[in-house]
Amino acid sequence: MMQENYTLLCDFYELTMANGYFVLGRKDEIAYFDVFFRTIPDGGGFAIFAGLDQLVQYVHNLHFTEEDIRFLRTKNMFGEDFLDYLRNFHFTGDIWAMKEGTPIFPGEPIITVRAPIIEAQLVETFVLLTMNLQSLIATKANRIVRAAEGRAVAEFGSRRAQGAQGAILGARAAYIGGCGSTACTISDREYHIPTTGTMAHSWVQMFSDEYAAFNAYCKLYPENATLLVDTYNVLESGVPNAIRAFQENGIEHCAIRIDSGDIAYLSKKARKMLDEAGLTQCKIVASNSLDEFIIRDLIAQGAKIDAFGVGERLITAKSDPVFGCVYKLAAVEDELGNIVPRIKISENNEKITNPSYKKVYRIIDNETGQPIADYLTLADEEIDESQPLELFDPISTWKRKTVTNYTARPLHEPVFVAGECVYDTPAIDDIKKYCLSEVDALWDEVKRFENPHRYYVDLSPDLWDMKQRMLKHEGQF
Amino acid sequence: MMQENYTLLCDFYELTMANGYFVLGRKDEIAYFDVFFRTIPDGGGFAIFAGLDQLVQYVHNLHFTEEDIRFLRTKNMFGEDFLDYLRNFHFTGDIWAMKEGTPIFPGEPIITVRAPIIEAQLVETFVLLTMNLQSLIATKANRIVRAAEGRAVAEFGSRRAQGAQGAILGARAAYIGGCGSTACTISDREYHIPTTGTMAHSWVQMFSDEYAAFNAYCKLYPENATLLVDTYNVLESGVPNAIRAFQENGIEHCAIRIDSGDIAYLSKKARKMLDEAGLTQCKIVASNSLDEFIIRDLIAQGAKIDAFGVGERLITAKSDPVFGCVYKLAAVEDELGNIVPRIKISENNEKITNPSYKKVYRIIDNETGQPIADYLTLADEEIDESQPLELFDPISTWKRKTVTNYTARPLHEPVFVAGECVYDTPAIDDIKKYCLSEVDALWDEVKRFENPHRYYVDLSPDLWDMKQRMLKHEGQF
Repeated sequence: MMQENYTLLCDFYELTMANGYFVLGRKDEIAYFDVFFRTIPDGGGFAIFAGLDQLVQYVHNLHFTEEDIRFLRTKNMFGEDFLDYLRNFHFTGDIWAMKEGTPIFPGEPIITVRAPIIEAQLVETFVLLTMNLQSLIATKANRIVRAAEGRAVAEFGSRRAQGAQGAILGARAAYIGGCGSTACTISDREYHIPTTGTMAHSWVQMFSDEYAAFNAYCKLYPENATLLVDTYNVLESGVPNAIRAFQENGIEHCAIRIDSGDIAYLSKKARKMLDEAGLTQCKIVASNSLDEFIIRDLIAQGAKIDAFGVGERLITAKSDPVFGCVYKLAAVEDELGNIVPRIKISENNEKITNPSYKKVYRIIDNETGQPIADYLTLADEEIDESQPLELFDPISTWKRKTVTNYTARPLHEPVFVAGECVYDTPAIDDIKKYCLSEVDALWDEVKRFENPHRYYVDLSPDLWDMKQRMLKHEGQF
Repeated sequence: MMQENYTLLCDFYELTMANGYFVLGRKDEIAYFDVFFRTIPDGGGFAIFAGLDQLVQYVHNLHFTEEDIRFLRTKNMFGEDFLDYLRNFHFTGDIWAMKEGTPIFPGEPIITVRAPIIEAQLVETFVLLTMNLQSLIATKANRIVRAAEGRAVAEFGSRRAQGAQGAILGARAAYIGGCGSTACTISDREYHIPTTGTMAHSWVQMFSDEYAAFNAYCKLYPENATLLVDTYNVLESGVPNAIRAFQENGIEHCAIRIDSGDIAYLSKKARKMLDEAGLTQCKIVASNSLDEFIIRDLIAQGAKIDAFGVGERLITAKSDPVFGCVYKLAAVEDELGNIVPRIKISENNEKITNPSYKKVYRIIDNETGQPIADYLTLADEEIDESQPLELFDPISTWKRKTVTNYTARPLHEPVFVAGECVYDTPAIDDIKKYCLSEVDALWDEVKRFENPHRYYVDLSPDLWDMKQRMLKHEGQF
């Protein structure tokens, strides 16, 4: 899958700038870029980071083919010495990132890239693309899974995904966020996401009648008989025919799926019919444009649903389909290797960046194991856990809180060191397990769907002071 | 790009059903599937069909590799004879489709597939995936381009796209819908979508001051100098520095880009400053979360903008990010080759399908050249254009209209015939030109953003009668 060469999947300005640095003799100046986001989708209290594995493979594969270079020559903007240089272009820098599956919050660097400017700049588009997609879908999946309150959620959305990778990697991200399975077969082959599926309406329509279709299916797959009961009429035809097929074939592990109509009403009636027929173990699966809001309502109304198939509203994150990570210059190094901070100022407050090379800690309450806040420091600061730590709101600085008996857990891990990949891809099930246990540790107040408590992302006093000085001096330090 | 083998990018149920037909000895029964959609995104009056070229390549490449077969064996659901059969699996059927760029309407078959059921079923997921993505983005792009009223619109959204193909093919679809260019470099290499781009904020931050950054850029690219003026302060720093850089370097074809703040206010002030400096030819480009609604408002407020860069809200179709094409069985052939219609009934009226193998005509008024309605017939019906044609609403059948002096233009063209591709990919600029001229021909009432006139998609009397009979007899004909 990811053998694909995505080097030219970059905004064209990455190349005009790269050529500029090359021509000016500045291509090897060291730059630090932070990846962060500003707004949590759906007004939620946290997001989930996913997509690191694909980022690693992209950086690993990064190179220009002769075809790429021939194409760039046709743009009549690049000199032959620059095009020559691209022939041996590869990534030689450092990348730090949070683990996949980590709950993430606005304003904190999820990834930091330190590299010669020409390399650091070029990777911008794809780095954002891959983590924006998977973080979006993992975040949405986790909301849906929490709404389902322990009931299984299967990802069904491939046909409505925004392109092949939206389907394939969307299934991966949905699994990390808590879905139990996917319908997308290739995601199982590539990423070991368990794939499941039984029948479409067309199967039922291909037979002389609905019972014949169900009976044939039960004989073919007695271990995996989920019958789709809404091709003609759920209660008058679908459920009675399913009951007959299950009973005549002695099916133990059976289920029906309802894909249209009023799911709450139909599921209650169907449950009653199944129970009266002695099929109390038969599961009811619901699908049809579900999301966390509809699932919560269905459960509140007492719908008798054991599992949900969720399609388009998950795989496109329909209610808020953009994850807005940005890639911003935070610092450069001068000739002596000193770190010189950079800032982006804006009329929009949330578009102002946090300057310099930084580290991120999650401050954990040792008594409860719950995170209290995330804490950004300059990279050379140390946190002495034996001393109280004073946290303060970076905007309303009078809001202060002193914590004791805490652990400051560093969230960044090295992924590339001097161009060498030092990242071991965890098993997908370990990523998922880590994600769900980290979400579990968050305060319930942060996990509310409506108006959640804002989790604190605070700055160390040194970092805060640096930022204020730079804002006063219009970006100069 | 599309050498990728996407055969397993299918819902797993396509494979359980395929194996079922194989085991039952029914795999070669001929089936007809229609691709159609039910709801126009954003409440618009029409959508635009795109993605056919990728569908053709997918069908052309369709095959199972040994790796695919090894993977399927691990599922413990498929017999060795079925897996053996997959080794030589390829598409042997027929496909008809509308041309890319055609305005499309709910309920009409945009694509019809006629093939042995095992083949027709397997291609479902990818056929939908590729045309759902590109039709979504082409439709959205066309809305945005119409809102811009002749000003250039560039597609900028790769980093926020839902995956690599969302970016790459999204750029292609946006161009078909009317965008003038893309930032996505690889879409230029692969699909000849003109790519453009100049600088990011990081370029400005990499220099000792903003003027130095602008001056360096103007010297590097005197033919392509669009300067980003909002890194520090648009009116106090960005625009004055840009004016100085343009003037000192004698730049003729210049532009500034504003990416934050109040675009209407800033563009008017910037226009005044540029004009007073004698740079009346300098263009102003605006970006920052634009879409058709904001663009319409900006223009209504007299913003001085010559071109728009549109990112996340275009490339994800943010306000309505799902294009809902479905793939429904319309007919089968019996042993004698007779066509036997099939229908899907539903409690939801719009989920009921139109049965049988059909043709679609666009009824054009010969006097105005404008389309009056689309007209679905059984495949063996002929339309005699010398005779008046009575159109009637398929739900409110008392709404009737007789048209004379019309042309019944068939919308389906053969794409595959007996497994052979008979489709010649048009040049992308020809697809775009066709799209824009077809949109141009639509009534203004259909093109309104709010509450547009519903374009008629009518059934021939024979088709309507067949559907009513089948509904009365619960799907049986």
